[in-house]
Amino acid sequence: MSKEIPYKIYLEENEMPDSWYNVRADMKKKPAPLVNPATLKPVTADDLKPVFCDELIAQELDDKTAFFPIPQEIRDFYKMYRPSPLVRAYCLEKKLGTPAKIYYKFEGNNTSGSHKLNSAIAQAYYAKKQGLKGVTTETGAGQWGTALSMACSYFDLDCQVYMVKVSYEQKPFRREVIRTYGASITPSPSDTTNIGRKILAEHPGTGGSLGCAISEAVEAATTQEGYRYVLGSVLNQVLLHQSVIGLESKIAMDKYGIKPDMIIGCAGGGSNLGGLISPFVGEKLRGEADYDIVAVEPASCPSLTRGTFAYDFCDTGRVCPMAKMYTLGSGFMPSPNHAGGLRYHGMSPVLSELYDQKLMRAVSVEQTKVFEAAEQFARVEGILPAPESSHAIRAAIDEALKCKETGEEKTILFGLTGTGYFDLYAYKAFNDGEMSDYIPTDDELKASFAQLPKQPE
Amino acid sequence: MSKEIPYKIYLEENEMPDSWYNVRADMKKKPAPLVNPATLKPVTADDLKPVFCDELIAQELDDKTAFFPIPQEIRDFYKMYRPSPLVRAYCLEKKLGTPAKIYYKFEGNNTSGSHKLNSAIAQAYYAKKQGLKGVTTETGAGQWGTALSMACSYFDLDCQVYMVKVSYEQKPFRREVIRTYGASITPSPSDTTNIGRKILAEHPGTGGSLGCAISEAVEAATTQEGYRYVLGSVLNQVLLHQSVIGLESKIAMDKYGIKPDMIIGCAGGGSNLGGLISPFVGEKLRGEADYDIVAVEPASCPSLTRGTFAYDFCDTGRVCPMAKMYTLGSGFMPSPNHAGGLRYHGMSPVLSELYDQKLMRAVSVEQTKVFEAAEQFARVEGILPAPESSHAIRAAIDEALKCKETGEEKTILFGLTGTGYFDLYAYKAFNDGEMSDYIPTDDELKASFAQLPKQPE
Repeated sequence: MSKEIPYKIYLEENEMPDSWYNVRADMKKKPAPLVNPATLKPVTADDLKPVFCDELIAQELDDKTAFFPIPQEIRDFYKMYRPSPLVRAYCLEKKLGTPAKIYYKFEGNNTSGSHKLNSAIAQAYYAKKQGLKGVTTETGAGQWGTALSMACSYFDLDCQVYMVKVSYEQKPFRREVIRTYGASITPSPSDTTNIGRKILAEHPGTGGSLGCAISEAVEAATTQEGYRYVLGSVLNQVLLHQSVIGLESKIAMDKYGIKPDMIIGCAGGGSNLGGLISPFVGEKLRGEADYDIVAVEPASCPSLTRGTFAYDFCDTGRVCPMAKMYTLGSGFMPSPNHAGGLRYHGMSPVLSELYDQKLMRAVSVEQTKVFEAAEQFARVEGILPAPESSHAIRAAIDEALKCKETGEEKTILFGLTGTGYFDLYAYKAFNDGEMSDYIPTDDELKASFAQLPKQPE
Repeated sequence: MSKEIPYKIYLEENEMPDSWYNVRADMKKKPAPLVNPATLKPVTADDLKPVFCDELIAQELDDKTAFFPIPQEIRDFYKMYRPSPLVRAYCLEKKLGTPAKIYYKFEGNNTSGSHKLNSAIAQAYYAKKQGLKGVTTETGAGQWGTALSMACSYFDLDCQVYMVKVSYEQKPFRREVIRTYGASITPSPSDTTNIGRKILAEHPGTGGSLGCAISEAVEAATTQEGYRYVLGSVLNQVLLHQSVIGLESKIAMDKYGIKPDMIIGCAGGGSNLGGLISPFVGEKLRGEADYDIVAVEPASCPSLTRGTFAYDFCDTGRVCPMAKMYTLGSGFMPSPNHAGGLRYHGMSPVLSELYDQKLMRAVSVEQTKVFEAAEQFARVEGILPAPESSHAIRAAIDEALKCKETGEEKTILFGLTGTGYFDLYAYKAFNDGEMSDYIPTDDELKASFAQLPKQPE
């Protein structure tokens, strides 16, 4: 090693990636296509036009093109908060007494507090370019809604956010940030849509769910002139935009001659992990290098480790196309004592396919262990991590402690997706010793799998 | 200009300053010394020993030494979250349509969310080096308490924070961050100190004040074996540590051949502004360059623009030494409708002296105008600013708009001290149109000045 590794590696602006990388182009067996639930046939661009922006549909359906140039307007916005630092966790290594070398790519240094902004700005840009008036979306924990409100404010687009009612009430400050960026925000289910009114009539007093908020946002987009719906995870286009995380990591590591043995990321819908690993998986697919890739999911919502690989609806309201993915069933709801995000019932079709092909593995962790890792990390690394990100921290610490036992000097890279400023009610429960774990039973999952829709041929 | 100016300038680790700069060394007329209220004579190191750490006392009293080397342990910690970026506000400039070039030094990229950590880590280091068990302090808005809890956690020191009761109740999440870093936190006034019990008996149900919390923290430090008191602003030692802000800014600007015409910072106790301007004021004092230096304070707590330059107590409880400073009187309390920090009744003796010598000027701004600037900034620059920092944003925008009228291409540097994640109740009041302004009347100030203590000869 010729150069000393600094605590934080920041790329120069001219070293930042100028294209996104589409890992599907290098996959021999491609992810299964989205299908239309009415016909059970693959969706066409025309099927998706009423819902999504045209250019985003093209990106969604394209599994051949390896590189998509990042438009200059988006690169300019990226410069406002990127490159994100690649940090060598010297302090954590010292605290653990591990011979492992730990790096993390920190995506929390922007007001939305997470990596979600990488795709939000791209989706807002294409909506603006298409001459739309605005976009609609749903948000659960609130990272995506905040990111989209920032992006829309930048391009002067109207932004309508349906926020899961229980989060809307639990997180008044998330709501205020979104309002400060000029977006409108409606607790879901609401009486502003047909599906919302139907759900309210059937379940008065419900706190809502992500699936329900998706259904409302899709209805709002398709019933207003000049609006489209946008989504912050799961979709291929989102993983494409998020590849900027992995590309920057790879450029920074190459610059200092660092080669990770292991790449770890938290996985809910898969947007962060998919983005982080994409250039590394590309090398793996092309036979140029090998990496141990690990998805970390909550034990309370274990789509990869305990789900089934099948076609399922992307939303609870069953109005969206179906995707082939590892799923717990579109009606599955994680226990209310589960804090933070990573609550989605399914997993990105790209990641599901990579997992099925054994190109990556998955582990699940319990939330009390996750918050122990979060606290340990915060105390030595000076960043208060989001609960989501802390799943990756937990796994990275566990791997580093294994190295301490075996003496192996592994190089670990993990994704630190964001900050926990809006999750302090969960930290409070942890600090007060009032946090508990919940693991769904086999019977519960079996009942949920029984509700899966009819599969295409 | 040979190099294109990037959005964000990050120094390399080896370009970071290795010494703090003590601007007092270059002042011909030095700031007046602290005096002992009992004797009205300048305090000695021995007077201060029961309250402050030994090395910090030496720094406090030294107005000759220009550079203090930064100990390696502190430089290592700085590397965890520094260098902080110097940002060219291209998006704000474009939005304003100004020919001015606007730069800001952003100190919010660490979990405590502000520049306070620069001095907290130094003070914790010297306490540890002296073999102390722990430190006590007060916190108002909570930035300082968070920063100190992070610093103490790093050096494994006990940390006892007295938090102004009204903030303790209004900001439960600030409290949780401090707890996550392992500090203990007591709402002030409390029944854990004599002075607290006295105040509670006299004013049952009071929400507390910074001055009262200082008195409790000092009592706690002096009555426990192995403890000292630490303070986050006002003191000379704090401005010394904060000079790292200005030094980094100067190095980054010199690297790209940028010379600011104007340097703007918010001013409460003066820690950020004093740090930001110190190397620039040094040049000014040595006749090497000239800069227009502007302190921005809230119209509701206008110590420079409407205070009087006199010896006053540093705390409401009148247990601390007296300092010669611009003051509103140690009994002055800003209106409860004032949001955020910048509530201190006085101003750093160094800044007070520079202001008195007309080496800097001051303006005051009303909080509704401050939040308008905050919102405008957040929408284009992607950072949700702290209310404190937004005072500087307001003044920078006003100056840039003047340039738009005159066509002057001024280069403006301002200090963006931190983020507003814990101030969203104030943003909510603004978003809801429920924020108001309060400006103290002349009679109110006159009555407060009448309470000033007997002045030394």
